[in-house]
Amino acid sequence: MDSARLLDLLGNENRRKILQLLAYRPCYVTEISDRLRLGAKAVLNHLELLREAGLIEDYTDEQRRKYFHVSDNIRLEFFVSPYSYGVEASTIMIKREPIENYSPDLETLTKLQERLWELEEEQKKLAQTQQAVQAKITEIMDACFKIIKEIAKDYFEREILFALLKKSQDSRALSINLGIPEYVVEEHLSALRDRGVIREHDNNYWSL
Amino acid sequence: MDSARLLDLLGNENRRKILQLLAYRPCYVTEISDRLRLGAKAVLNHLELLREAGLIEDYTDEQRRKYFHVSDNIRLEFFVSPYSYGVEASTIMIKREPIENYSPDLETLTKLQERLWELEEEQKKLAQTQQAVQAKITEIMDACFKIIKEIAKDYFEREILFALLKKSQDSRALSINLGIPEYVVEEHLSALRDRGVIREHDNNYWSL
Repeated sequence: MDSARLLDLLGNENRRKILQLLAYRPCYVTEISDRLRLGAKAVLNHLELLREAGLIEDYTDEQRRKYFHVSDNIRLEFFVSPYSYGVEASTIMIKREPIENYSPDLETLTKLQERLWELEEEQKKLAQTQQAVQAKITEIMDACFKIIKEIAKDYFEREILFALLKKSQDSRALSINLGIPEYVVEEHLSALRDRGVIREHDNNYWSL
Repeated sequence: MDSARLLDLLGNENRRKILQLLAYRPCYVTEISDRLRLGAKAVLNHLELLREAGLIEDYTDEQRRKYFHVSDNIRLEFFVSPYSYGVEASTIMIKREPIENYSPDLETLTKLQERLWELEEEQKKLAQTQQAVQAKITEIMDACFKIIKEIAKDYFEREILFALLKKSQDSRALSINLGIPEYVVEEHLSALRDRGVIREHDNNYWSL
């Protein structure tokens, strides 16, 4: 799943509402249109966009009614901070095999419900841990940023050091990422190396 | 941070690009406009929307140049599956106090970089664990859905059981969540209770 495409799709409130409805159970067009008080044509347009992106699928039941449903487990994680930006979308294929192992009775259902709630609790805790890690990363970035300001002699050195803090890379990559001509990057890399601030490795790779 | 508003804002590619740029370092309008090849007016409009939502802030430097920067640590998690839909945005306040504890030298910087990379590794692993938990939840939901289909006698019973699987609730909440009149919900709740499928608790609360 392409994260940019997913964010484009999720940027529309009605599409989010349709997805939310379909994530509850499969629906046909009139149902969606009634529940969300949206014209059938608008609903169909949204469904088509969601289908093209692989978020939903459809099937036709015995009464020849076309139902739409969410196709997969899709996760999107986005974060932004004063020093980082990241977005990642992932599709998790759903295993459907082991279901036959469950006997279709009430006891099994309540046991599964218990397990479900445990997993949801686990999910919440994981989210909290991730927030804590994210906060720690930003705190360290903040400290690094201040140290780099002390060490760097000009704008270019600061930019280069900050890029190398995130990732060791060669002068070509630095030039592209920073939008600074390669010969300017190389001049400053040499100066920083001569002062013992950065190190040169094989293949023109540079690191702090 | 309101998740709907955040998704609305992130639905625009240029706004995402601006955020990504500002997450690298503070920028002024002309810089953004040059780097992204966007008109200054368009950039200003996007910045205003991002500022209103609290995603970015600005400050003016000694040369009276106005810089924009990302204000906080913001995380958004979105997931959708055939049985669940969730979106959560969180703002993580950044602690800036402990920075004075770091001495501004190269040795500290490389140590911090090491710690930074460790944390990034941890972040990746947490994301993988979250995916695994999400997959397990969907698998169990899938099994529950099939059991409910066996137990339920009609559409209404199925809807009610599925809602109670997710969360114990009263008939009013069920009526609102399912878009089914309350008296219809109550009729079916009684029938399910009489068959021993669900239980009634205090305050008209129902559970599996």
